[in-house]
Amino acid sequence: MRKLKVAIVGATGVVGREMIKVLEEREFPVGELVPLASERSEGQKIEFRGEDVTVRRLTPDSFAGVEIALFSPGATVSREFAPHAARAGAVVIDNSSAFRMEADCPLVVPEVNAGDLLLAVKPGGRRIVANPNCSTIQLVVVLKPLHDAATLTRVIVSTYQSVSGAGQKGIDELETQSRALFSLGEITPSKFAHRIAFNLLPEIGPATANGYTEEEMKMTNETRKILGLPDLPVAATCVRVPIFYCHSEAANLTFKDPLTPARARELLKAAPGVKVVDDLAQHIYPMPMLAVGDNDTHVGRIRTDISQPNSLVLFVVSDNLRKGAATNAVQIAEALLQQHASALGMH
Amino acid sequence: MRKLKVAIVGATGVVGREMIKVLEEREFPVGELVPLASERSEGQKIEFRGEDVTVRRLTPDSFAGVEIALFSPGATVSREFAPHAARAGAVVIDNSSAFRMEADCPLVVPEVNAGDLLLAVKPGGRRIVANPNCSTIQLVVVLKPLHDAATLTRVIVSTYQSVSGAGQKGIDELETQSRALFSLGEITPSKFAHRIAFNLLPEIGPATANGYTEEEMKMTNETRKILGLPDLPVAATCVRVPIFYCHSEAANLTFKDPLTPARARELLKAAPGVKVVDDLAQHIYPMPMLAVGDNDTHVGRIRTDISQPNSLVLFVVSDNLRKGAATNAVQIAEALLQQHASALGMH
Repeated sequence: MRKLKVAIVGATGVVGREMIKVLEEREFPVGELVPLASERSEGQKIEFRGEDVTVRRLTPDSFAGVEIALFSPGATVSREFAPHAARAGAVVIDNSSAFRMEADCPLVVPEVNAGDLLLAVKPGGRRIVANPNCSTIQLVVVLKPLHDAATLTRVIVSTYQSVSGAGQKGIDELETQSRALFSLGEITPSKFAHRIAFNLLPEIGPATANGYTEEEMKMTNETRKILGLPDLPVAATCVRVPIFYCHSEAANLTFKDPLTPARARELLKAAPGVKVVDDLAQHIYPMPMLAVGDNDTHVGRIRTDISQPNSLVLFVVSDNLRKGAATNAVQIAEALLQQHASALGMH
Repeated sequence: MRKLKVAIVGATGVVGREMIKVLEEREFPVGELVPLASERSEGQKIEFRGEDVTVRRLTPDSFAGVEIALFSPGATVSREFAPHAARAGAVVIDNSSAFRMEADCPLVVPEVNAGDLLLAVKPGGRRIVANPNCSTIQLVVVLKPLHDAATLTRVIVSTYQSVSGAGQKGIDELETQSRALFSLGEITPSKFAHRIAFNLLPEIGPATANGYTEEEMKMTNETRKILGLPDLPVAATCVRVPIFYCHSEAANLTFKDPLTPARARELLKAAPGVKVVDDLAQHIYPMPMLAVGDNDTHVGRIRTDISQPNSLVLFVVSDNLRKGAATNAVQIAEALLQQHASALGMH
């Protein structure tokens, strides 16, 4: 079996570490793992399949012989180094927002639009695939089968996003502040604009001109691109909540055609990457504590939207570090290997 | 100045204690305070205006001479004892769900429909005024001025509700579980169906036949009754979040007529009981940590709903024990005293 040389850029971050874990769990055929990070993390050891691998410093020359490069360092570093990796012959799967809206970079959730990968790897392709925003991924895996059945006409979504979406500093800040509150210690916000412990912030990402945050506009624009519906009306409210892992979303969906909750449940049960968790009377519904560590997206509370015909309301929870980031990136690598093996390793 | 004999039923609960605090803060003309509770709390001392008042046991005969009875003991006790209080000549202001949807009990948010109070206190009236559900109150104070200007046609709301909405046991459970998680202690859910610490539950109240919870249907039905719009389409998703105080709500509102965010902001700035907290670029928006202890409802993140014409999105936060319960009840008492003084104390 063919084994690949795989680089992880941002290997010491929360998403980078999760990527390495997911590669191992899913037995991705890694021949050589190349963990890369900033100078600060150079020389750190990362465990992969029971062995220590040394983190190297990211440079333009880091990608010799690399066939797949999983990037998760933040948009600025991605923008600078992804082209070096692509030039060296790797296919880049980038978890930052740097390339998501560029026309020649596909934005891929394999269950939804794996076919778009061709754009990146065809001769002359840019060899950069963008991994969507975490909140968008878990939404579109649920939207796709419903849209195919009844044609979406409007999406309203309100999110409940965990602090791990802001990286290790977000996790640390919630922990430190929560402990401090119980011991009457001082609270100094650093990663977030305000206290996050036992509070929530209706602000994720910078403000944009139309009054939405960047995170909210990502949900609008990326959902449209992934579903191939450039005019789909989508309005999001993104809220940071004091939870460590998993993002939750309350969504109101309007369709052109009627769609009963029972039919939606059937469609979602048959959908790849989705678990239907839906028996309210038995207190069974999606929750962060259930979804954490799971590669699947959980959906439940599926019901008729009583405020409008042809509409449904549902609740979606997924592990933002898994399907929202690392798992989706590794699934893209798997799809590339299955469908475009000859395009990998053009050295 | 006239002073009233005021009974507090459920005086030792979180809402009862808040009612006593609010009566004192707002200098309601209390001549005598009669704190009532179950046998278990009999004899406890409650501080009111610097003096200890002894909690008495609630009986059918507790209401002799009482002019206003603020009830907050839960629906079963309210259903049994509110009629005794009314028969004794008191006007009952009941915080439970017992009477909210009864046609001859007005459901009142004074800023919105103080005029409805007449129904309860007119000759032959039932003398029971219902205090709405906490999530509904903070929503309607924001909806009312916008509806008056542009006519609401649909309301979508997703809530982020604190544990104090479930009373002292809810507060204790979040604290105990949060501490236990940090010390690797055991977590045993009791008040909530699942762990609440660093988790969330899309379930508040029992399931109803249509797949919504009772809390969600309260938001639909009570909003309609308070606004006097029996057919207003309202769909709610109610979610318990690991926060101690204040409920937050993301709302998408559709109107018959156009309404700009700027105009909505003006209307809300002029609205009683509402504070506009809205400057995203400066990280200024409603949050639980800002609204706690405030009698006003905070609204911000006001923007055009980009998914549909004539629609707005906004974020509403209010202290569920204050405007969501105690403050609204005391404001009803104030309105009764101002507008229907002669109906009080018909002994």
